Amino acid sequence: MGTITEEILGRASGKKAHAGDFIIARVDYAMSHDGTSVLAVKAFKDMLVEKVWDPGRIIIPFDHLAPANNETTALLQKELREWAAAQKISHLYDVGEGICHQVMAEKGFALPGKVIVGADSHSCTYGAFGAFGTGVGATDMAEIYASGKLWFRVPETIEVTVDGRFPKGVTAKDITLRIIKDIKTDGAAYKALEFYGTTIEAMSMSGRMTLCNMAIEMGAKAGIVPPDAKTGAYLKDRSAEPYSPVIANDPTYCDSYHFDSNISPQVACPIDVDNVHDIEEVEGTHVDQVLIGSCTNGRLEDLESAASILKGRKVKCRTLVIPASRSVMLEAVNSGIAATLLSAGATICNPGCGPCLGGHMGVMAEGEACMSTTNRNFKGRMGKGADVYLGSPLTAAATAVEGKIADPRRYL
Amino acid sequence: MGTITEEILGRASGKKAHAGDFIIARVDYAMSHDGTSVLAVKAFKDMLVEKVWDPGRIIIPFDHLAPANNETTALLQKELREWAAAQKISHLYDVGEGICHQVMAEKGFALPGKVIVGADSHSCTYGAFGAFGTGVGATDMAEIYASGKLWFRVPETIEVTVDGRFPKGVTAKDITLRIIKDIKTDGAAYKALEFYGTTIEAMSMSGRMTLCNMAIEMGAKAGIVPPDAKTGAYLKDRSAEPYSPVIANDPTYCDSYHFDSNISPQVACPIDVDNVHDIEEVEGTHVDQVLIGSCTNGRLEDLESAASILKGRKVKCRTLVIPASRSVMLEAVNSGIAATLLSAGATICNPGCGPCLGGHMGVMAEGEACMSTTNRNFKGRMGKGADVYLGSPLTAAATAVEGKIADPRRYL
Repeated sequence: MGTITEEILGRASGKKAHAGDFIIARVDYAMSHDGTSVLAVKAFKDMLVEKVWDPGRIIIPFDHLAPANNETTALLQKELREWAAAQKISHLYDVGEGICHQVMAEKGFALPGKVIVGADSHSCTYGAFGAFGTGVGATDMAEIYASGKLWFRVPETIEVTVDGRFPKGVTAKDITLRIIKDIKTDGAAYKALEFYGTTIEAMSMSGRMTLCNMAIEMGAKAGIVPPDAKTGAYLKDRSAEPYSPVIANDPTYCDSYHFDSNISPQVACPIDVDNVHDIEEVEGTHVDQVLIGSCTNGRLEDLESAASILKGRKVKCRTLVIPASRSVMLEAVNSGIAATLLSAGATICNPGCGPCLGGHMGVMAEGEACMSTTNRNFKGRMGKGADVYLGSPLTAAATAVEGKIADPRRYL
Repeated sequence: MGTITEEILGRASGKKAHAGDFIIARVDYAMSHDGTSVLAVKAFKDMLVEKVWDPGRIIIPFDHLAPANNETTALLQKELREWAAAQKISHLYDVGEGICHQVMAEKGFALPGKVIVGADSHSCTYGAFGAFGTGVGATDMAEIYASGKLWFRVPETIEVTVDGRFPKGVTAKDITLRIIKDIKTDGAAYKALEFYGTTIEAMSMSGRMTLCNMAIEMGAKAGIVPPDAKTGAYLKDRSAEPYSPVIANDPTYCDSYHFDSNISPQVACPIDVDNVHDIEEVEGTHVDQVLIGSCTNGRLEDLESAASILKGRKVKCRTLVIPASRSVMLEAVNSGIAATLLSAGATICNPGCGPCLGGHMGVMAEGEACMSTTNRNFKGRMGKGADVYLGSPLTAAATAVEGKIADPRRYL
């Protein structure tokens, strides 16, 4: 009996788990990227443990500063490759494979019922597959490297129900922002979210990833969609690892929210992710750059959305498109989407996190504004003194066409 | 009467020009990129001249650090956009359009008989179109911004003749390296090179750009291929600007070299561009990264060469492919070349200079080695303590397949 989180953590700890309990859970997969691995490896070495617990269950994708932006990064990445090779970690995905969370999904590590811990705050993305996915710091990750286990306080769960069909121009990103508007950036702190309702059921796996990806923007430990036939279809042939899906079993929720999907396109304005407005309130705001990509919205469906508006049109401002993975880029190339985007004047960059975190590849200048499909608009996130507006790929594409925030419904 | 250089500079200065003369020439087009424009604009402002001589003849492509790698770059680029707008400079090609020299060719600014000065050492590339193209520093560029003129000492010219057909696996890049091996890095200092012979005549415009691009690696002020029907075919519909081709007229050369195109693939080893070896002498050398791109070898023909080897194979080391322009990237997408490269595991980055100059997007770590299709292998060029080997796209692709320097002829 319990929420999805209680059921999964109960199984992973070998005893019943109730919200508020402290447990030690087996971790099925541990993920750390080029940024956090550096710190995690340092902490691991400080523990004087010789070998990692299971080299087949540690996944290291290079995405945050890939390809290396300077000599320091290059050297840290080199040392990381050497450490991983010495530890016989076979799942190191080097420069160009894609964003860690996307790679985890594509390679079949994000599986229903699993406990997946990532040294990245957006590891809650794996909840889209019915996993308990959560982010930790580098020292916790070192502990997992060593033991394959981690302690948790079992979180309470908030039930979020979304019903109805999206109107034209509205997507998973818009309802996600709408939910954050109500729950607020700290409203789910150290809680789990479970997503239900006809809108969620109808949502693609890509849309569910967008939704769960941003659970952390409400402070949530995890954001989980119950696995269904769509989940199974996505995972087919991706993993040899057995898994058994977990659903809630007569659960007790600490809170419940209901949303209707009949909304306007939503935009999160600087400098908080819950500073969310209907597009009617912000359209016309000047932007200097548009960014379509990231673990939130860099999948084929997202690029296809953008292309549906950019087809036959020209962008009026710098427009960066960053596919979430090599596989997404290849699909975009093969489907004609990449050609549409390039013909519109967009710049397609290599798969990775790009400028989402202000590290390289499109950092903004002071006084500039960006319409971005990413997940954070904090002060200075993409460059000191630059404003970030968050929206869907449709909204971003319409904005690119006008050089100012634009309502995508006029283009559909 | 004179060499191509004497003929062009004579016309541009309004009087006969002989090697050794000091002349003042009208500049047809001035090019400065995101890196050098910053310094040129500063010098221009110091001159207290209000308006540039001709805003339609100044071309500013953003390629060196595009998209911006940090906040300082972002701010400098923002200020540059603002200055260009205030000066009504319409030919500003923003992030993603491509490498300056490629953009100059594609947009029809590199025209036979013209004097084209760029604030970039590889501006000699325009010689592929029968122009006198040369690189200057930022203060000289500021003088051109202000007056549209620049003084020159008319250079002596070295005649270089290459005859014969390339054997399998040998390309324009290989003969270019072979020429540099003989003439040495300072053998053409403040001289012009003129290229003749059946090999040059048979060379594509792309190959001629590779050849002329590296004239500066011998110290040359310019490297010029006489314009012919191929030149005209390339330029058709690219430019509304009238031009009249210039050829040599009973010229006097200060030196002459003859080469036979029947050579092995060539590799320039660290740390000088004239440290050139037949591939047989260096194959098997370990590399950590392969880079296919740059103003030297980032065109469709180059990507196609690489794809011919990578088709159906997998790369064994980090392999970055950086198309020279958006147009090249679009052609690579539409022709299936991009799909072949991605399927082989290569990473396709946005058009620009990439890590060629060690600024971002693939900087190397100390102790690493790169096989690169670029033009310079100086100490630290792509990262402190990293080695750079220069070769053709075919050699780079074969090297990517093996993770060590490999002879492309085995794959053809």
